[in-house]
Amino acid sequence: MIRIGLDMMGGDFAPIEAAKGLIDYLANAPSNVHLFAIGDQATLQSLLQDCKSNQYTIIASEGVIAMHEHPTKAFKEKPQSSIAVGYHLLKEQKIDVLISAGNTGAMLVGAHFSIKAKEGVLRPAIGSFFPRTSGKTGLLCDVGLNADCKPENLTQFAQLGVAFAKTVLKIENPKCGLINIGEEEGKGNLLCQETYNLLKEDQTINFIGNIEGRDVFSDKADVMVCDGFTGNIVLKMGEQLAEIAKEKNIDDPFFKRCDFETYGGSPVLGLNKPVIIGHGISKAKAFANMIDLAYKMC
Amino acid sequence: MIRIGLDMMGGDFAPIEAAKGLIDYLANAPSNVHLFAIGDQATLQSLLQDCKSNQYTIIASEGVIAMHEHPTKAFKEKPQSSIAVGYHLLKEQKIDVLISAGNTGAMLVGAHFSIKAKEGVLRPAIGSFFPRTSGKTGLLCDVGLNADCKPENLTQFAQLGVAFAKTVLKIENPKCGLINIGEEEGKGNLLCQETYNLLKEDQTINFIGNIEGRDVFSDKADVMVCDGFTGNIVLKMGEQLAEIAKEKNIDDPFFKRCDFETYGGSPVLGLNKPVIIGHGISKAKAFANMIDLAYKMC
Repeated sequence: MIRIGLDMMGGDFAPIEAAKGLIDYLANAPSNVHLFAIGDQATLQSLLQDCKSNQYTIIASEGVIAMHEHPTKAFKEKPQSSIAVGYHLLKEQKIDVLISAGNTGAMLVGAHFSIKAKEGVLRPAIGSFFPRTSGKTGLLCDVGLNADCKPENLTQFAQLGVAFAKTVLKIENPKCGLINIGEEEGKGNLLCQETYNLLKEDQTINFIGNIEGRDVFSDKADVMVCDGFTGNIVLKMGEQLAEIAKEKNIDDPFFKRCDFETYGGSPVLGLNKPVIIGHGISKAKAFANMIDLAYKMC
Repeated sequence: MIRIGLDMMGGDFAPIEAAKGLIDYLANAPSNVHLFAIGDQATLQSLLQDCKSNQYTIIASEGVIAMHEHPTKAFKEKPQSSIAVGYHLLKEQKIDVLISAGNTGAMLVGAHFSIKAKEGVLRPAIGSFFPRTSGKTGLLCDVGLNADCKPENLTQFAQLGVAFAKTVLKIENPKCGLINIGEEEGKGNLLCQETYNLLKEDQTINFIGNIEGRDVFSDKADVMVCDGFTGNIVLKMGEQLAEIAKEKNIDDPFFKRCDFETYGGSPVLGLNKPVIIGHGISKAKAFANMIDLAYKMC
């Protein structure tokens, strides 16, 4: 049985949209999955009263860590909040994976205090799925957790990203590219120049060299590595394409897949247990897809 | 009279496409412009033999600095090359502006050795026009000259970009935004955090704060400031949209304007004289638009 913990209180449209997403998911859920819906008991009972599935359980929490709150402070001061309860369950092995569209910082603080990073991982990173014009999906890592990085960090992001691409995306021998300005070795900022040298020597990775801004929508690299500053900008530019296409009434599968809701959430890589972070503005579709991703990750 | 120097030998498709661009431009040129076509005399005479305009003069040069050559070395060893001759004319005030689609590094080395940066400018930057879904045009700066920057550099890019937006793009009181991850003050990498503080204090700039990847196609900021690493990635992602739309047969003015040929070339900001650098793969349309831009800059 795969046990998925879902923070029902996190995100701008929670708990209503989280509840809708849960109901939508359970309508076609695999039989070996059980959802643990963490949130205010009375509210969730009311929202889920029409859901006849026996594949979920409400777990009561008290209070929410709001989007603007200081992560460390809030996590310590609200031990009964939905995120804190979720991490408690994850640490105690009552659930296998935790999902939240709430305060990202608090999700990371929670990971740090409970399940922790895998041994040897200097810094966890957030991976994000990235659509390609070919119809395939790439992985972009890091997309915002680590704004300032060292070459050793980027090298680990590559290793973590490749491992994820192999196991979850089922890509055999994923091609790993370093996002840079210029294709040749020696190009780019100091960070990329040094990272290139490390990745070139790394025998565990199929490193294909530098890729440029023009390559992110192509199949050139399955895993695209960069610092969290660069990755966040690339990700948000990409996401905006879905909006632009919508405004222009362009009905095209590639542009639709630029919508973050397609993928639901972003996996945190490098932790001892799987954790998925959703957009603050997640709606039902995003929640349902996050649950699906969590299932696949397990 | 506005005297425009054009390196006819620079770029992958020079001199044929440069000659076509020159001819196209002269077909509808303002009467107060004169072009100085710098390149191999015999070749240019042959290519331009059907051009009956009296608004151009061929300036003989010998040899070309190829795309792969080391800029400083090549510039010194080839004093009769088209780029070197161009800078000589610019320094001697025989022309008012220089255009080249050739070796970018050599163009910058040439500027450094001849016309130099404006007093007080720590590092020149390359500005690039960026299309908006509104139909307007923004300026992105720097787009690749300075991969590693200090906060003082970014602050100057903002000042240079704003001055360009006022004088060339004719935008009154341009809004200047810092490309960052997160809108709030204090967000981002160390570079952006410090730059934010400097820009906030700068009374010469209408600083509107941070902008994100999702904002680059909007009118939020007229001038978008970032280090050259970030800017180059943003630029190339943007340019790729023109390709994607073409592949998908999407006929839309916004996506067409993502094509770099629309703007032709990128101005180098912070020099004592105007200089325009073109894409290595410039064709006739790009050359013609670069000449038009040079005219406007003068």
